[in-house]
Amino acid sequence: MKMSNSVSVFLAVLCFLLPSYCGGSKILVVPVDGSHWINMKIILEELHSRGHEITVLRSAKSWYIPSNSSIYTSINIPMLEDEADRSFYNKMLKDVMICRSYPRFISTFCQQHLITSMLGKGHEILARSANIILDDNVLMKILRDSKFDLMLTDPALTLGVILGSYLKLPMVFNVRWINTGEGHLTIAPSPVSYVPISGSELHHQMDFQERTKNMLHYLYSVYEQYFIINPAYTDLFQKYFPPGTDLVSLELSADIWLFRADFIFEFPRPTMPNMVYVGGFQCKEAQPLPDELEAFMQSSGEHGVVVMSVGTIVSALPHGITEAIAAAFAELPQKVIWRLESEKPSTLGKNTKLVKWLPQNDLLGHPKTKVFIAHGGTNGMYEAIYHGVPVLGLPLLFDQFDNLLRLKVRGAARVVEVRSLTKDNFLEALKDILENPSYRENSQRLSQLHRDRPMSPMDTAIFWIEYVIRNKGAAHLQSAGFGLPWYSYFCLDVAVFVLAITGTSIWGFIFVCRLLCCKRSSKKIKPE
Amino acid sequence: MKMSNSVSVFLAVLCFLLPSYCGGSKILVVPVDGSHWINMKIILEELHSRGHEITVLRSAKSWYIPSNSSIYTSINIPMLEDEADRSFYNKMLKDVMICRSYPRFISTFCQQHLITSMLGKGHEILARSANIILDDNVLMKILRDSKFDLMLTDPALTLGVILGSYLKLPMVFNVRWINTGEGHLTIAPSPVSYVPISGSELHHQMDFQERTKNMLHYLYSVYEQYFIINPAYTDLFQKYFPPGTDLVSLELSADIWLFRADFIFEFPRPTMPNMVYVGGFQCKEAQPLPDELEAFMQSSGEHGVVVMSVGTIVSALPHGITEAIAAAFAELPQKVIWRLESEKPSTLGKNTKLVKWLPQNDLLGHPKTKVFIAHGGTNGMYEAIYHGVPVLGLPLLFDQFDNLLRLKVRGAARVVEVRSLTKDNFLEALKDILENPSYRENSQRLSQLHRDRPMSPMDTAIFWIEYVIRNKGAAHLQSAGFGLPWYSYFCLDVAVFVLAITGTSIWGFIFVCRLLCCKRSSKKIKPE
Repeated sequence: MKMSNSVSVFLAVLCFLLPSYCGGSKILVVPVDGSHWINMKIILEELHSRGHEITVLRSAKSWYIPSNSSIYTSINIPMLEDEADRSFYNKMLKDVMICRSYPRFISTFCQQHLITSMLGKGHEILARSANIILDDNVLMKILRDSKFDLMLTDPALTLGVILGSYLKLPMVFNVRWINTGEGHLTIAPSPVSYVPISGSELHHQMDFQERTKNMLHYLYSVYEQYFIINPAYTDLFQKYFPPGTDLVSLELSADIWLFRADFIFEFPRPTMPNMVYVGGFQCKEAQPLPDELEAFMQSSGEHGVVVMSVGTIVSALPHGITEAIAAAFAELPQKVIWRLESEKPSTLGKNTKLVKWLPQNDLLGHPKTKVFIAHGGTNGMYEAIYHGVPVLGLPLLFDQFDNLLRLKVRGAARVVEVRSLTKDNFLEALKDILENPSYRENSQRLSQLHRDRPMSPMDTAIFWIEYVIRNKGAAHLQSAGFGLPWYSYFCLDVAVFVLAITGTSIWGFIFVCRLLCCKRSSKKIKPE
Repeated sequence: MKMSNSVSVFLAVLCFLLPSYCGGSKILVVPVDGSHWINMKIILEELHSRGHEITVLRSAKSWYIPSNSSIYTSINIPMLEDEADRSFYNKMLKDVMICRSYPRFISTFCQQHLITSMLGKGHEILARSANIILDDNVLMKILRDSKFDLMLTDPALTLGVILGSYLKLPMVFNVRWINTGEGHLTIAPSPVSYVPISGSELHHQMDFQERTKNMLHYLYSVYEQYFIINPAYTDLFQKYFPPGTDLVSLELSADIWLFRADFIFEFPRPTMPNMVYVGGFQCKEAQPLPDELEAFMQSSGEHGVVVMSVGTIVSALPHGITEAIAAAFAELPQKVIWRLESEKPSTLGKNTKLVKWLPQNDLLGHPKTKVFIAHGGTNGMYEAIYHGVPVLGLPLLFDQFDNLLRLKVRGAARVVEVRSLTKDNFLEALKDILENPSYRENSQRLSQLHRDRPMSPMDTAIFWIEYVIRNKGAAHLQSAGFGLPWYSYFCLDVAVFVLAITGTSIWGFIFVCRLLCCKRSSKKIKPE
């Protein structure tokens, strides 16, 4: 049952009658580039349509975030993109594939090492950028004088968190990733017995061995946070923030976490009162395709169409892989639409159409689409769920392995490792999804559950952003646990005290008993 | 911003167009008597208006739940009320007041002992009732043949949980209390460092001493659960359920927990994906008062009115207390409406009107009402919050001490202990609330935050009840942690294993080092 339409109408009427109640606020936005920007942009469009005034901070070298826009004003600042580009991710894909070819234990260690070194380097760049920005008196004066009502940021990168905290703005996160992994790990209790740590490629039902693996992943993530990431900001925090500030404490001060997740996809786990779930907020009903594409779809007849896209970060799969994939496609009765930026494979069949860009949401919502071949990025996964299309996953980097695992355990996906992909195993997996109706049924069931919510994810997101603006924050939803040192949070001090008292009492009791026994036995001895 | 109206209209239109989509389901209800029934009844009225067919199981001796109703069919079953009545609670109040007159540590121990003995006795009666019901083949055949779509129950008593599980029905809880205390303790991680255990009379910001007290309360609640409550059901579960079943496992199998809480009242704490917050769903805008009462309200002039009611469970405050309260009221310029079931106090002033019953919600929503004097029951607290009226609390039993503490730390209430109540300290507290505007301001702020939600609590409750009916459960929202044994849940097995491996490695390393050192030193010694 969707109520989103009625709620939208109600919101629109309310804003028309009481514009100051909804719009007219000044929002400072620090987005993350690439696929994260796709999400943020959709929220900004909605906020703009409701009369809010938006200022976006971006890198001058941004891949995706335009400097000129009708919905926001932009300001260029030094950011990660100044020092990292797409070739970095292509290089990383190669390294990950080498790692994953090793035996399991070494592979995990190797990948973790890659991520740790990337995190260390990335956070050094971010701390440097933040330092430059906070040092820039002219920019800071502009930002201060603008009297923003809100910082809206994606905390996958830390600039927005630092700047929002420094300017003492109420803060809303549009979040999935943060520091060492999935955002929940920072804010909510995460028992490692049933909460798989990101990157562990585990699911929520774990045996002893898996729980041990998960525990090691957890301990490693704590090490990364406190020994790799936090030290990168020590100088910055000493210079600009009160003593005791660290990155985690700034992140925990956010008022609302708009979490890009839904528990039909995420494994159920503890959450917090200031986390709001908006997974799939970017999804919408399919729009009609361009005529040429529609004709291609219809030409597939009863067999339908396979849609393939492996996202925005990695521009090119290895040559041998694209050749194998193209050869497999050529053997299908289906038609194929393939978003491919690299050169045309020599094995390409007549049934396959290569494109540089495709209207992914509209294609996934098209009745002829039978399978979505994807790298497992969050956006694509939610679009597949929204439209109930089964997935063949080719995970490449980051969370993509974990994402595809979530669809796989629900019977809505199969996964083929790129490093071991051959024409045969790829074709077998693809045919399995096309021919076995359970994949489609499971996808449709997920779709039905995902859509069955009292309010659309987008309306939910907008409500909570405006809630924070209206109420000048949401401190009353923040847990008191956020302010405790770790040993108090885990009650280790209390446990030591209680154990000491108990131990002393037992010892005292035994001591007194012995004393009494000795006295008695000495009394008994005396008469003799 | 309230969207409840538009959502309600949308729901109504949807149900008119698609009655089978909303109504027409068969719901089995096992409510709890007394004030809990007030909540349940309001939900049942809404469900009935949406076309659902409702069957209520009740005690033939029920105080509040009528056997004849236009909104449900009732079936009499043996329940707690057959063996407990209101005199039981009056007796308990006397015992609690004696307990609370002792020094703090003894007082806590004494009250805990009272509750434990009540819990033990109560659960024995409940297990006996459940046994009789499950043994009753005729009744069970009727229930099975009815093919219910849902069990809706208040798990403060266990009959509904046991029956729902036995009949394998999807289950929705209308819940605040369960077993040893607040429902969260059963379902969500509850770090004792910032989650006060119910009955501890602590808030969420605790110093070392308070955290120690909270830890002891927690350990005691675990003892109560596993050594007092669970054993009461051993025979029943052995007879009717698979091996390994205990009360907690049945409770954790509920699909949705409609939690009568809101985090503007509860302290923020971890929650779970299948917990839905509907605190205050029974509140509604005030209706016009009967003419006589309205005339009385208006006669208070600019001074306004004090409203007093101490709930339904305890029928009589001690005589000396009512005399002191009446004498204090007589000194006020305000008018007073007092719901009093016992005899008229001799000190009663002319400004005070005694009534046997009062339209509490309508009085709290009246602009002349200045203070609400209440015992701290959850319903009254949410009505006070909804209407933004400050509270003078006279806590008597159970959660009432904890409830009032929540309003007190937010500056919206003062609390006077009944056992030490005098005319003077009662009057001082009352005048403080009447004369110091901060109490009213804080209450109004809470009211504003409580009402600022995307959907009314009632619409939320109905949505999730029908969600479970539509989807035949909500197993996908249940955490995998629910199924783990406690040592696996807390990863103690993994921790022991990891520590053993680490210890052995360190020992091995030291052993090898020593071996090498010895060899070297023996080599060094030899030449000499």
